[in-house]
Amino acid sequence: MSNSLPKSLQKVALFLERLPGIGEKSANRLAFYLLRMPDGDLKNFADNVAELKARTKRCQICMNLTEEDLCSICDTPSRDRSQITVVEDVLDLLSMETGNIYNGLYHVLHGRIDPLNHIGPENIFIDQLFERVKSEGSNLGVPVKEIILATNPDMEGEATAMYIRNKLQEIQHSKGLDFDISRLGYGMPMGGNLEYADYMTLRKALENRRGF
Amino acid sequence: MSNSLPKSLQKVALFLERLPGIGEKSANRLAFYLLRMPDGDLKNFADNVAELKARTKRCQICMNLTEEDLCSICDTPSRDRSQITVVEDVLDLLSMETGNIYNGLYHVLHGRIDPLNHIGPENIFIDQLFERVKSEGSNLGVPVKEIILATNPDMEGEATAMYIRNKLQEIQHSKGLDFDISRLGYGMPMGGNLEYADYMTLRKALENRRGF
Repeated sequence: MSNSLPKSLQKVALFLERLPGIGEKSANRLAFYLLRMPDGDLKNFADNVAELKARTKRCQICMNLTEEDLCSICDTPSRDRSQITVVEDVLDLLSMETGNIYNGLYHVLHGRIDPLNHIGPENIFIDQLFERVKSEGSNLGVPVKEIILATNPDMEGEATAMYIRNKLQEIQHSKGLDFDISRLGYGMPMGGNLEYADYMTLRKALENRRGF
Repeated sequence: MSNSLPKSLQKVALFLERLPGIGEKSANRLAFYLLRMPDGDLKNFADNVAELKARTKRCQICMNLTEEDLCSICDTPSRDRSQITVVEDVLDLLSMETGNIYNGLYHVLHGRIDPLNHIGPENIFIDQLFERVKSEGSNLGVPVKEIILATNPDMEGEATAMYIRNKLQEIQHSKGLDFDISRLGYGMPMGGNLEYADYMTLRKALENRRGF
């Protein structure tokens, strides 16, 4: 950013420039826009940003983000608790929640297995999923009937889905449990990302889910 | 934003959605990105946003934003103080400052005359420009030799430039002053916006400036 500008404005713009998808010109524009906003709004925003990390924690059941012990999805009794959709990220969960296409629970991995970037199963929230399957107490007292693997349809997502399927099958054999394992069906283009999919595509993928 | 998310995250995302060029999905992405940033960085950003308005004021000479009495441009003795480029906005000034194409001073109007939106000459910083021309004391003790009108090449920008030219000519006659009045030359596409112009285009426009 040009140093023809006040330091405080430069600092805000430089921070905004670090965010994904925001270049130098956009960062400047946004900083100026902030400067023109009412004082109260800016103050609130600053407080909310400062509190963001302190207030937010993971749901005890599904690892979704929440300010309570349970997230708003696990806390809704009308949802089908016997069905769990496994997603990589909260943004993927948000995509699934548009358009009223799904009424089960989730499990948020907060990542995917990615050996090239040194991310193994132990670095994401994968064991918590196996616990939910093994013990009904870890799934709000409801036995699991179906696990839908909705990791992204790219190399790491597929590998993560396969890893989870294999582990789930081991658990089925050792514990004598009976539940379906499926993968989101055709409809999602390979190499795509759930986060940017429209809900019609997601509905198609959900309808066409297949045994895995 | 979906209410499957914690309130504090929703608040930050909703605020971000109000900013220009940021839609719902981008706002969510940015909010999540913020959540993953180090605490210290977030705290600094929040402090900077909260302080933004309190710290920033207008330069006493040219109305550019600054934290001191004079902006960094008016405060640089090596700049040609006899030349003033009139721009609508600080973002336009920033565009002019890329590429080292100009070494004079500025005058920032903070808007343009726009009767349809009820913005008249009295709503922007236009009188301060006339004061700079009339009294050398208002222009750091240096008499003005040239005024370059660099309002945007659209209807409101042209009207603003014409209004300023007419007033400046009146001042020339009544005070017996002699200075050139020019308008940024061909090079800028009509309907375009200075803020998004690259500096090569701006250099062309500057070279081709013509009497107005």
